[in-house]
Amino acid sequence: MNNKIIPEGSKDYYGKGALLRDFILNNISTIYSTYGFDALYTPIIEYAKVFNGHHGEEEKFLFKLEDRNKNEYVLKYDSTVPLARVVSMYDDIKLPYKRYQLQQSYRYDENGFYREFIQCDGDVVGSNQLINDSEFINIAYEGLSKLGFDNFTIRINHRKIIQAIADIANINDKKGILEIQRAIHYADKQQKNGVEEIKSELLKRNIDEKVIQIIIDVVNISNSNLSLENILKETKKYFKDNKYANEGINDLEKIINYLPKKIKGKCKIDFTLSRGADYYTGFILEGKINNIELDAVLGGGRYDNLVSEFNDKSIPAVGMAFDMENLMLAMKKLGLDKRAYNSVPKKILLYVNDTQAKEAIPVLNRLREKYNTSLIFDTDINNEDLYDYCINSNFSLIAIINKNNDLEFINLRELKQECNKIKTKKL
Amino acid sequence: MNNKIIPEGSKDYYGKGALLRDFILNNISTIYSTYGFDALYTPIIEYAKVFNGHHGEEEKFLFKLEDRNKNEYVLKYDSTVPLARVVSMYDDIKLPYKRYQLQQSYRYDENGFYREFIQCDGDVVGSNQLINDSEFINIAYEGLSKLGFDNFTIRINHRKIIQAIADIANINDKKGILEIQRAIHYADKQQKNGVEEIKSELLKRNIDEKVIQIIIDVVNISNSNLSLENILKETKKYFKDNKYANEGINDLEKIINYLPKKIKGKCKIDFTLSRGADYYTGFILEGKINNIELDAVLGGGRYDNLVSEFNDKSIPAVGMAFDMENLMLAMKKLGLDKRAYNSVPKKILLYVNDTQAKEAIPVLNRLREKYNTSLIFDTDINNEDLYDYCINSNFSLIAIINKNNDLEFINLRELKQECNKIKTKKL
Repeated sequence: MNNKIIPEGSKDYYGKGALLRDFILNNISTIYSTYGFDALYTPIIEYAKVFNGHHGEEEKFLFKLEDRNKNEYVLKYDSTVPLARVVSMYDDIKLPYKRYQLQQSYRYDENGFYREFIQCDGDVVGSNQLINDSEFINIAYEGLSKLGFDNFTIRINHRKIIQAIADIANINDKKGILEIQRAIHYADKQQKNGVEEIKSELLKRNIDEKVIQIIIDVVNISNSNLSLENILKETKKYFKDNKYANEGINDLEKIINYLPKKIKGKCKIDFTLSRGADYYTGFILEGKINNIELDAVLGGGRYDNLVSEFNDKSIPAVGMAFDMENLMLAMKKLGLDKRAYNSVPKKILLYVNDTQAKEAIPVLNRLREKYNTSLIFDTDINNEDLYDYCINSNFSLIAIINKNNDLEFINLRELKQECNKIKTKKL
Repeated sequence: MNNKIIPEGSKDYYGKGALLRDFILNNISTIYSTYGFDALYTPIIEYAKVFNGHHGEEEKFLFKLEDRNKNEYVLKYDSTVPLARVVSMYDDIKLPYKRYQLQQSYRYDENGFYREFIQCDGDVVGSNQLINDSEFINIAYEGLSKLGFDNFTIRINHRKIIQAIADIANINDKKGILEIQRAIHYADKQQKNGVEEIKSELLKRNIDEKVIQIIIDVVNISNSNLSLENILKETKKYFKDNKYANEGINDLEKIINYLPKKIKGKCKIDFTLSRGADYYTGFILEGKINNIELDAVLGGGRYDNLVSEFNDKSIPAVGMAFDMENLMLAMKKLGLDKRAYNSVPKKILLYVNDTQAKEAIPVLNRLREKYNTSLIFDTDINNEDLYDYCINSNFSLIAIINKNNDLEFINLRELKQECNKIKTKKL
């Protein structure tokens, strides 16, 4: 029976993979807690109608399923829509609600690497204070730093600036603005070689040349060597007194103004940043690890209308998510994953023979007062395989009860020599 | 748009619910770690064929789903079948493999209270040493004690004793034995009033009266006031030299022999215990909190054939799972849930007005060095609602920046008086 299969785009976490996963989740949940966020967990499956109509072009990736009674479900696409549902459902959740949610999300992507993956969401629902937007830049910085990254960039932008680009090109209908926003997003995901590539990508999407020129102009401002504050000043000049541009730039000025200098140093205003989801209304951010080939490791923004779709009241919100799978990849590429393996308590293997079973128990209890300890018999695993077993199962020490009934420890390097001797003898 | 719905049998964990969930999971994962178990996480969805054929009568509860391409999935029914799959898939998982897995499981139960729930599994795959079976009794004891329970019973039995009952009644075919096993399980789940009710339940299932008498006889032995060891001795006498009875009783004798006295005191040999799943082959256990109306909070046993269904080799295994939802219910009923709420770090609310935004930031950073702290503006939430907000969001202290630019703390009791004053004034 060939059952050695798991669904496409999903994976098992075991051994070091599980240690790395736990390390990332523990660090990120601790940071959210420090910032006063509470944990939320929602079901993996939601009724399909809860998820319909919020994700624009990407809605085709909803992982839809039907049960035997023809009920339609969706494996949760993100944690933002469930959050909006939760806020509208429970009276004892008071606003502003700051919550984090480290859970699986799903995409039905025919070519996608991951269909099941973990996102580390944090959101503030019910406050229009821009200090919250700024706190997410802090959280992004703290999260990446805590995991060991130091060469990274937090890209920021504002959806109103995209609207301003459309506006000064005399495009004012929702559909037209959306087209530009999606084209910028597409161009951003493709770009590797600067403005020329952005231009050619936008042309492919049939964007008006006038619009393209405006985009190139503002991208050139944000790509200059000016300080964040001066980039915003220059952008304001460029847009003259455009209402949307002013709103966007004023927001960004306030958000940046709250940041400590060291965090400002990691930020880049980037007018090619657009983000996929349609529901963002203001500030947006994305985090990239520099000098490695990898998508964003985090992203988010302000979405002041999403929650009201579940509720009669208008409720402002802002949030972001770390992408755990990309964080794992980045940590592995940079050798930062070792931090996870070294952070777990040492594990001891108490290795006994059949006749030692009864006296092993008090020894075991004594060891467990201080250390994680596993009891294994020589009938379970023989001497020759012991080294392999310890390496694969992350043991750092072996304890045996010797002939004098004393506890004796063998560290793994010695053990390897022992095992080699045994093997040589046998041969 | 009415989206205030979640799928039947699933729930959201927020506020205190999330604290209790985290408290239970953290404690149980720590215990498994102490015993040398490693974490494993498997996908929520599995291909349907992985789950077919392992759960007997209960297979009707598999939560089957179909995607747009007619692929058939199952929302994982348990963590044991995925474990068997994992062990058969990865060469770098060495046996004996001790792993814990605290994850969702799913039942498509038309009347079930929970369709999505969390099980806290631990298993040892690849060892036939009965000390492992005994360790699970230890883990059950430690887990329940750590959560604050002291009045509980760990019921134990052995599937071979059920086989012996069938054998001495001359029932030797697999189907016949299975019928008896399932009938005992059913009777066990119904029983509240002792042997008479067991008898009437078994009669309803058309079990042979001779078999019923044997069951009543052995139940009477296990219900006597004898020590565990003497119950086993009496049972051995009763079955004379029946091969299956001897095997089962010898196993149980060894398992009990490894236990410390204080844990033996919580154990009860119970021949009405049968467990639902078909795959158990030896020792079985279940944990019940005494004096409250609630199903088992944990259960498990030895299953020496399941893994081989995924593999060519015969691989013995033993394991168990805590049921998190029942643990939550039991803790709430007994007031033990307070342990969870009191165990989390204190959370401070820094409450400022608009003009204090800039000076609030260094204060915030200072507070966060020691405490979880949330910054909220008086435009987000007004004075009168502050008490309600703090109670519902689990804050224990409010910090304000007073007129002299000093940091001032208000504890919640004082705050309530303040708020009442404000409310009275307004009226």
